[in-house]
Amino acid sequence: MPVENSSAPSPRTALIADTALTLIAERGMRGLTHRAVDEAAGLPPGSTSNHARTRLALLELAVRQLARRDAEILTPAEFPDPADGLDALADSIATVLRRLLIRRREHTVARFELALEASRRPELREIYDAAGQGFRDLMAELMAAAGSTEPERHALSLGAWSDGVLFTCTAGPYHGRVPTKEELRERAGELLRGMLA
Amino acid sequence: MPVENSSAPSPRTALIADTALTLIAERGMRGLTHRAVDEAAGLPPGSTSNHARTRLALLELAVRQLARRDAEILTPAEFPDPADGLDALADSIATVLRRLLIRRREHTVARFELALEASRRPELREIYDAAGQGFRDLMAELMAAAGSTEPERHALSLGAWSDGVLFTCTAGPYHGRVPTKEELRERAGELLRGMLA
Repeated sequence: MPVENSSAPSPRTALIADTALTLIAERGMRGLTHRAVDEAAGLPPGSTSNHARTRLALLELAVRQLARRDAEILTPAEFPDPADGLDALADSIATVLRRLLIRRREHTVARFELALEASRRPELREIYDAAGQGFRDLMAELMAAAGSTEPERHALSLGAWSDGVLFTCTAGPYHGRVPTKEELRERAGELLRGMLA
Repeated sequence: MPVENSSAPSPRTALIADTALTLIAERGMRGLTHRAVDEAAGLPPGSTSNHARTRLALLELAVRQLARRDAEILTPAEFPDPADGLDALADSIATVLRRLLIRRREHTVARFELALEASRRPELREIYDAAGQGFRDLMAELMAAAGSTEPERHALSLGAWSDGVLFTCTAGPYHGRVPTKEELRERAGELLRGMLA
């Protein structure tokens, strides 16, 4: 989810935010405390509190950092020219999903945790949703370029399928298994053809 | 996810387990404590500890109860005769998804929380996965009956899409919105046709 405000944080703030994401992924929301971030980041006691006084402020830092990290790999350049056809699009979706399951597994799990937390905290909800808007717009543009007559709804279906695959392979019944690129490409292709053929 | 062991719990145990599921959905894993369950269930202090001494035991109670509750609405009888065709299957999938988003929203959110928790607790993982096996088998049977040559992989894709829709509409960017039955039927039909046509 590309961020709406991608001004770079200070190195200290980035360290705190990245450490918060790691703790959320490894220990869940219960494991995220200001003190735990200080300890895991090797910072003097009180450092995290200085950068994010409240729990909400710490969660906000984490959401914004996650959006920045996701924006590093989810860019329009990752996706093919629509003229290349559905197979090329399915291929790039498979590539992005595998990257999120292998190199970014921690961020993927942290995103699910933060989404659930946002469903209970309206202030966090707003930031979380804004952070993901750019990516949803990108998906809708891709669907329109691929010939969809309902690009927003098709983007929702593709986004839901992608999140479902990521959830299933991290926290769901296929936890720990990473589908091959061929499997993902074939499954993504089936969904795309069903929507667009 | 139908349960592998559906022996009915005592009314007191069921009350504790249902209350735990409500707390998990409303407050997240941080909000689940033995004391909070006693209070929310209107039970004398210590009642929950008597039924589930450890946190893991309480989580196990919750997972088993969730499986029992899901089994009430996810039965083979919910799904049409394969001879009725893909539209009938898409229709029944839409019905089940709407039920999980409207009447069972709390259980749907609790399931995501418990799945993420299970990814950090091997003992819980085992129970969670076993609880869902019956439902995954049912999905694979439906795919095979619908003519799939790869029923397990297609069941994974359909399950991932379904979980993705549920996540998107509870905790994700479409939180709080429930797609119409027609929307869900159409989207499910696209996926099914893509896989099976």
